[in-house]
Amino acid sequence: MLQSRLFTKTRKDAPKDEVALNAQLLIRGGYIHKEMAGAYSYLPLGLRVLDKIKNIVREEMNSLGGEELVMTSLQRKELWEETDRWDDERVDVWFKSALKSGAEVGFGWSHEEPITDMMKEYVASYRDLPVYVYQFQTKLRNELRAKSGIMRGREFLMKDMYSYTASEEAHKEFYDKVTAAYLKIFERVGLGDITYLTFASGGAFTQFSHEFQTVLPAGEDTIYIDSKKRIAVNKEVLNDEVLSKLGLDKKDLVEETAAEVGNIFSFGGAKSEQLGLNFKNEDGESVPVTLGSYGIGITRLMGVVVEALGDEKGIVWPKSIAPFRAHLLLLSEDAKIKALANEVYKTLEKNGVEVLYDDRDQRAGEKFADADLLGIPSQIIIGNKTAESKLFELKDRESGKTSEVNLEHLIAELRG
Amino acid sequence: MLQSRLFTKTRKDAPKDEVALNAQLLIRGGYIHKEMAGAYSYLPLGLRVLDKIKNIVREEMNSLGGEELVMTSLQRKELWEETDRWDDERVDVWFKSALKSGAEVGFGWSHEEPITDMMKEYVASYRDLPVYVYQFQTKLRNELRAKSGIMRGREFLMKDMYSYTASEEAHKEFYDKVTAAYLKIFERVGLGDITYLTFASGGAFTQFSHEFQTVLPAGEDTIYIDSKKRIAVNKEVLNDEVLSKLGLDKKDLVEETAAEVGNIFSFGGAKSEQLGLNFKNEDGESVPVTLGSYGIGITRLMGVVVEALGDEKGIVWPKSIAPFRAHLLLLSEDAKIKALANEVYKTLEKNGVEVLYDDRDQRAGEKFADADLLGIPSQIIIGNKTAESKLFELKDRESGKTSEVNLEHLIAELRG
Repeated sequence: MLQSRLFTKTRKDAPKDEVALNAQLLIRGGYIHKEMAGAYSYLPLGLRVLDKIKNIVREEMNSLGGEELVMTSLQRKELWEETDRWDDERVDVWFKSALKSGAEVGFGWSHEEPITDMMKEYVASYRDLPVYVYQFQTKLRNELRAKSGIMRGREFLMKDMYSYTASEEAHKEFYDKVTAAYLKIFERVGLGDITYLTFASGGAFTQFSHEFQTVLPAGEDTIYIDSKKRIAVNKEVLNDEVLSKLGLDKKDLVEETAAEVGNIFSFGGAKSEQLGLNFKNEDGESVPVTLGSYGIGITRLMGVVVEALGDEKGIVWPKSIAPFRAHLLLLSEDAKIKALANEVYKTLEKNGVEVLYDDRDQRAGEKFADADLLGIPSQIIIGNKTAESKLFELKDRESGKTSEVNLEHLIAELRG
Repeated sequence: MLQSRLFTKTRKDAPKDEVALNAQLLIRGGYIHKEMAGAYSYLPLGLRVLDKIKNIVREEMNSLGGEELVMTSLQRKELWEETDRWDDERVDVWFKSALKSGAEVGFGWSHEEPITDMMKEYVASYRDLPVYVYQFQTKLRNELRAKSGIMRGREFLMKDMYSYTASEEAHKEFYDKVTAAYLKIFERVGLGDITYLTFASGGAFTQFSHEFQTVLPAGEDTIYIDSKKRIAVNKEVLNDEVLSKLGLDKKDLVEETAAEVGNIFSFGGAKSEQLGLNFKNEDGESVPVTLGSYGIGITRLMGVVVEALGDEKGIVWPKSIAPFRAHLLLLSEDAKIKALANEVYKTLEKNGVEVLYDDRDQRAGEKFADADLLGIPSQIIIGNKTAESKLFELKDRESGKTSEVNLEHLIAELRG
């Protein structure tokens, strides 16, 4: 893509009221726009990153047998009253409004209730189970404070999966598969090394739920990590009994600040019982369906990547979710050099390399600073020297290391 | 895809409160689920159709130079007050709520205001123009009545594009290109023959806006069509002066009921003036940017296709947006035949044909009825006779015509 055709521009400064590092960098790079605290628009570069994260998550959900759907944002009061989650005293993040008829409606902050209620249409017998469904859905949550940029929004994109199984055993088996898939997702988006499966409080149905926590100064949680076993315990459940149950030793644990990037949760049969989702088992008995729910905040994950992997110059995207694989910087006004850069751009595109081509008239210093801010993994620098040598300077955004390569190697490197 | 793996099932009857034909058929087929009047979830089959429509629209928007983004649903009251579109007396479809701080917020029913406001960040000079941006966004509109299924929702998916140009001439040129792209979109989704560019009322800024109207009994508009010139006039603006201006003769016009599937609109510089989006032109003068807006209701379009092309047996999808290209029906319990069907399924998938394979135990009559309800363009019927003849019965859903073809021809036909 030609950078001159992009309507967004980089900015020197983020808005004064923006205190979160992730949003500061993303706004400065033209990835997002702040509409209000906790509500951000995703501009062309930002949308490219989001789509890549979504595709990674989608691949992993599909490989678990997940079927994709999209539920509504509008929610019926009566449904949520059945599980006692309508009242603001019970759930304090509802946005609510009213239809013209006067009937109250809510805006979806979660979807266990409507999906479980809908399943009554499709699940009647053990033969209809298991069902695994997931969606990418814009959640609305009336957060009291929204000061963490895209890491905690009033409006944010979430992947939520729900499993409906015939037994606790079938549930457990799937739950473990999701755990593995989640770890793979965090690995694929570049957070594998610093993300830990974390034991957290389980609520009414189970002793523990599981979180996936990424070590991050801007995180909101405190966790205790056993780095050898690669698991952690959330401070909220840390006590001697829990440690002994998990086979952990206090002296192996290191305290860290971390941000939750995913969580998985077992409801047992309780939610199905409340909503009347029962099925006939093999013995002909009517029993409630076992429910699990599995969330990843997609926009939050993007924010965590920015905070965790960026440096003082700007964003550092992993190749897997970068908006482009390479950033081609033309640093000459010489017509011959420009023609060469155009040629390289076309050749790379032809070879399936996603390239952002900085063909603007800006000065070299500005182009370098913009490229470092935008954080595309590889920078290809074409200046006056390039014409003679026919060697291109290839710079790795993360390490800063440069090498000189010919066109053939450039293609091989960036395609790989 | 194996139909036995799909969690949705067909239903004999739609919910009693569902009066719209499009929603009745889509609910019965398991494409959508009704959450409340005017709010429908999109289940796996429905989501496949939506994604195909989106991809067609995306291709055409990109070919116009459009840049994709996604704005927020949450809207600031102060912004919409600047253009006098916050008050319920002025705009009667707002859903509104309040932040914890007490500040009122709205949910986006349209996005001219926030996008135009955002452009102040990026547009300062004629060099920054033109800008064409578009999004697929879930709109929320508090409709008094929502009885048209997915053709008029309280929550629906819309593609809205906005053009920012430096002059009325540049605007006009782009506006005409969008007109052509829209006609191409309606052609590609199978509505070309019955969709007309229609002159409608223009509001404060221009004499006319343009609608794209599809002839349909369930439509809400009355239009007068000149079928030779392939244009129409909305009843709301029909008078002798308009006809003479458009060079139309009353006796060439045929009255039809129609549904609006798209509309395009010129704002001139008025909206930019209200919001302060000005740019320095080549003479150094500060002038307001010219705005155009271009909408297609994506979910509405899906509903119109169902109503316009369906028949008494169910849905008839055009190939371009069908959830699958072919529906493979296994009508035998013989192990040899079943193995043959499995083989055909795998061969088709390997050749890039999207196939729904009805591998369920249902009776033949039920499978035929379901296939006709689901409306996948081609049905491949494999029964006891197939094993001997090695010829497959290929049935066209739309015409009902059948032919017997060998595997090679089957692949060629369905891949084409």
